[in-house]
Amino acid sequence: MDESVQPAEQEISDQRLLKGARARASIARRAAEVASVEGLTGLSLARLAGDLGVSKSGVATLFGTKEKLQLAAVQSAREQFIELVIRPAYSRERGMARLRAIVENWFAYIDGPTLPGGCFRGQSIPEFDSRPGPVRDALAADRDDWFAVLEKEIGRAQEQGYLAGLDPHAVAFQLDAIVSAANTATRMGDETALPLSRTLIDGLLGTRD
Amino acid sequence: MDESVQPAEQEISDQRLLKGARARASIARRAAEVASVEGLTGLSLARLAGDLGVSKSGVATLFGTKEKLQLAAVQSAREQFIELVIRPAYSRERGMARLRAIVENWFAYIDGPTLPGGCFRGQSIPEFDSRPGPVRDALAADRDDWFAVLEKEIGRAQEQGYLAGLDPHAVAFQLDAIVSAANTATRMGDETALPLSRTLIDGLLGTRD
Repeated sequence: MDESVQPAEQEISDQRLLKGARARASIARRAAEVASVEGLTGLSLARLAGDLGVSKSGVATLFGTKEKLQLAAVQSAREQFIELVIRPAYSRERGMARLRAIVENWFAYIDGPTLPGGCFRGQSIPEFDSRPGPVRDALAADRDDWFAVLEKEIGRAQEQGYLAGLDPHAVAFQLDAIVSAANTATRMGDETALPLSRTLIDGLLGTRD
Repeated sequence: MDESVQPAEQEISDQRLLKGARARASIARRAAEVASVEGLTGLSLARLAGDLGVSKSGVATLFGTKEKLQLAAVQSAREQFIELVIRPAYSRERGMARLRAIVENWFAYIDGPTLPGGCFRGQSIPEFDSRPGPVRDALAADRDDWFAVLEKEIGRAQEQGYLAGLDPHAVAFQLDAIVSAANTATRMGDETALPLSRTLIDGLLGTRD
C-alpha cells in the first residue's frame, strides 16, 4: 500500500462526510417543512427524494427508516426554533425584557415564512401525543426544554418585581396555550387571533412600559 | 310483474338501507377513534375494514374515498361532542351556569375514555389547518359553531353581571386555548395540566359560588 495516497484519501473521505452531513441537514429541513403542513405521518422517503431531486436510495442511505427521518425533522425544527426564537432574545437583559423578546420572536416565527405550516410544535405534538415511541419522546423532551426556558425567565422577572405571586409554570402554561391557539386560529383563517393574543399576553405579563 | 311482492321487496330494501346506515355510523365512529390517535391522515379503508372485520370493498362502497371517510369521521366526532359536552349543559340555566357545565363536560370529555387520543378537534385542526379542502372546511365550520355556542353563553353570563367589560370572543378564545393546552399536556403525560387548567378557568370565569 502506498502511504503517500493516504492524505488524499482522507481528504476525499472528509469531503464525503461533509457532503453527507450537508445533504442530511437539507433533507431534514425539507422534512420539517413538509411535516409542518402534512404532519410527520405524511413524510415519506420517496416524496422527499422527489422534492429534492435526489434518489430515494440516497435518502434511505442517509436516514434508514421513516422514523429516523421523523426524528431528524423534529431535531431540525428544534434547532430552527432555538436559532430564531430563543437565541436572539439572549442579547436582551435577563428576566422580563428577555421574556418579552422571546414572545415577540415566537409571534414572528408563527406568523412568518419560516415553516409553511406554522409552528412545528403546534403541529407535531397533537399529532404524536397519543403515540408512544421515540418521536413522542423527542417532542416531549423538546417541550420540557421549552417550558424550562420560559420558567427560568419568568422566575428572573419575578426577582425584578414582575408577575408577583404567580406560579412560573402556570404563567408559562398560559403563554404557551395562548400562542399555540393563535397559531392554530391563524392557520384556520382567523385574522383577529394574532392581535387578540398579543393583547392577552400583554395583560398576562403586565402593561408595557 | 307480481305486485304482491312489492311490500316485501320494499321491506328488504328498507332493512338494507338501515343496515347500511348502521354500518356507516359504526365505521365513522371507529374512524374518529383511530384518527384521535393517529390522525385523519392515518386513516385507511383497508385498516378500518380489518379492525371491524368487514370487507374492504364493503367500506369502499359505503364511503368511496379516503376523504369521504375523513369527513364522516369529523361528522361523527362532532355529533359525539355535541351529545357529551353541549347537550347535557342545556338542562342548566342559561348563562354562567350553562357555561360552567359546558366547561365541566369538556374536561370530562378530554380526560375520559370517549376517544382514545383525547379531544378530536385538538388533534385534527392542527393536522389540517394548513391543508385547504373539504376536510379543513368541515373542521372550520365546526370550530365556528363551537365558538358561537361559547360566545352566546358568555354574552348571557354578562347580562347576569358576570365577566363585565370583557369581549365574549376573547373569553371564548382563552377558554378554548386553555382546555386545548390541557388536552395536549395531559396526552404528553403532564398530570398537573388538568388541575392547573381548572384553576386558570375558575380565575377567568370568576370565583365559584
